[in-house]
Amino acid sequence: MVKRIGKYTLQMENGPVIMGFGSIGGRKEGEGPLGKYFDQCYEDTTLGESSWEKSESRLQTEAVEVALHKAKCSASEINYIFAGDLLNQCISSTFGLRGLGIPFLGQYGACSTMAQTLALAGVFVETGAAERAAAVTSSHFCSAERQFRLPLEYGGQRAPTSQWTATASGALIVGRKPSAFRGPKYVRIREVLFGRIADLGIKDANNMGAAMAPAAAQTLIDYLNDTGAAPKDFDLIMTGDLGQVGCDLMEQLVRDDGLDIGGIHNDGGLMLYDRKNQDVHAGGSGCGCSGGVLCSLVLNRMEQGTLDNVLFIATGALMSTTSSQQGESIPGVAHLVHLQACPVEE
Amino acid sequence: MVKRIGKYTLQMENGPVIMGFGSIGGRKEGEGPLGKYFDQCYEDTTLGESSWEKSESRLQTEAVEVALHKAKCSASEINYIFAGDLLNQCISSTFGLRGLGIPFLGQYGACSTMAQTLALAGVFVETGAAERAAAVTSSHFCSAERQFRLPLEYGGQRAPTSQWTATASGALIVGRKPSAFRGPKYVRIREVLFGRIADLGIKDANNMGAAMAPAAAQTLIDYLNDTGAAPKDFDLIMTGDLGQVGCDLMEQLVRDDGLDIGGIHNDGGLMLYDRKNQDVHAGGSGCGCSGGVLCSLVLNRMEQGTLDNVLFIATGALMSTTSSQQGESIPGVAHLVHLQACPVEE
Repeated sequence: MVKRIGKYTLQMENGPVIMGFGSIGGRKEGEGPLGKYFDQCYEDTTLGESSWEKSESRLQTEAVEVALHKAKCSASEINYIFAGDLLNQCISSTFGLRGLGIPFLGQYGACSTMAQTLALAGVFVETGAAERAAAVTSSHFCSAERQFRLPLEYGGQRAPTSQWTATASGALIVGRKPSAFRGPKYVRIREVLFGRIADLGIKDANNMGAAMAPAAAQTLIDYLNDTGAAPKDFDLIMTGDLGQVGCDLMEQLVRDDGLDIGGIHNDGGLMLYDRKNQDVHAGGSGCGCSGGVLCSLVLNRMEQGTLDNVLFIATGALMSTTSSQQGESIPGVAHLVHLQACPVEE
Repeated sequence: MVKRIGKYTLQMENGPVIMGFGSIGGRKEGEGPLGKYFDQCYEDTTLGESSWEKSESRLQTEAVEVALHKAKCSASEINYIFAGDLLNQCISSTFGLRGLGIPFLGQYGACSTMAQTLALAGVFVETGAAERAAAVTSSHFCSAERQFRLPLEYGGQRAPTSQWTATASGALIVGRKPSAFRGPKYVRIREVLFGRIADLGIKDANNMGAAMAPAAAQTLIDYLNDTGAAPKDFDLIMTGDLGQVGCDLMEQLVRDDGLDIGGIHNDGGLMLYDRKNQDVHAGGSGCGCSGGVLCSLVLNRMEQGTLDNVLFIATGALMSTTSSQQGESIPGVAHLVHLQACPVEE
């Protein structure tokens, strides 16, 4: 059963289980500090496909395959797949997942998609609408760059506030009980919160972090108000992906509300790459960034017992090239999932 | 409580109520046979906005306002809004709804979005995840034409199989109990079914009906298998929007499976316009077509007592211009909602 707590939070009384998860990355992701936590990183980021869009679809296909394998499930045992990405009409998801035969619910939350899909999978499992559900998202530097910015061949300069779209996919299988143990602990979803759109008028499409920071702050504050929890109750508050500029702004906004998350807060966009040596400017971004970091480092650490309580807050910038060309500001949204590691002997 | 019936169907034990609904259309929709059932149709399809994309956003804003008004609710009483559209990154929804302050879950199901959002709102209300939830979608001929096809000024020829994107929006408020009665009956959601992707290899982007027909047939057959219901148990099986070409194909596919839906089946794309006099070729299409027809004629008739059991099956073509340019086929999906009219004295 789900229980509404406060104004925005849904509490899961049983707590759906992360049965399996998978992360696939590209070369840059493999060379970064989290490379060893990914299930697979490809030196050749085409993944053998004939277009960047097809490569991105392939990332999703493979991430789901790994997640199913770890969960000891077949696709036919999954009732629903919640999936989305950044490409126009979400074609990475559609084409990457069409062969699975799983009822398909396309999601659009921009870079908040990993949290949105995971939270929906959690709600469906907790309420009995599904026995098992999958959540998946992806991004690819090359498909995003040419869709949102400039042709790759142009080699345009990047602003210091700009972020680097991760070539990565994260996938999770959510169910009622664990089917396999990979460490002393396994992970349950305790609460989820679907965020409201926040738009403080930022119009700079090279500064997504600033556009999304207000939504991240709002979602975190709503959650803490609803539950009475404090930042110190968590081992990690992971936003994804604000980058350095957005993180500074979000921490400031939260501080203005009387909360200090310094030392507890980190961001997928700052975790995925070595910013000193990997030339990613303000950090990583893209649906695959927060998804990849969650499904590599974070869930591995939780199952190994070195992280117990994690707030995963993925943020999305709900704009398009058309809306920016028409002078619109960039609305942001942030969805939250509270994950908790539970001892296997429980 | 939701109950899984058979392999794909979710039965709603209480049956969430359609508390209110709204439909907004453009000039062509107003001139069509359903014009009088729309809450408002605009002679000026810019709706006073400076771009077609902003006009489409405005359709959603107004449809939600009407639905809230009929439901006697304020936006602050709605826990979630499920919304999506055809534009890149779903900007009609984002920009049309950002002012509402309702937790926002962006959906992407192409022209299946009305069924996907309504079914999700139903699941959330039935399971207690929401007290009230909203579902909304839209399309606009001019924003779709220039994004998916050609500049409007070009005046390109249209293939006989092509469909006319509706300038329309439909919105619904779903809750536990009716708050207002507009006729002798009110409407409950009895079952929903989220469909699987079907792709039989159609590549002609001017023949979306053919690309979506297999998904519509599959979803209907799955539902009838799961529930043991027969086509004659329904007053209307409304697909949306296959147009004439897709309808013929779908009825053939269903007939191949031993089922006859002739006389019971109709299609939003055939209902919205007068095909003899309105020059829409194979019929209407776009998220707003099925959404508009549902939220005008169909729900009005159900509340007036002239339609009791309706299967609403909205179909989406999950393609983009990029996927078509890369030679991909067009995957289709269809989601189903079974609506039932209940006497007010109940």
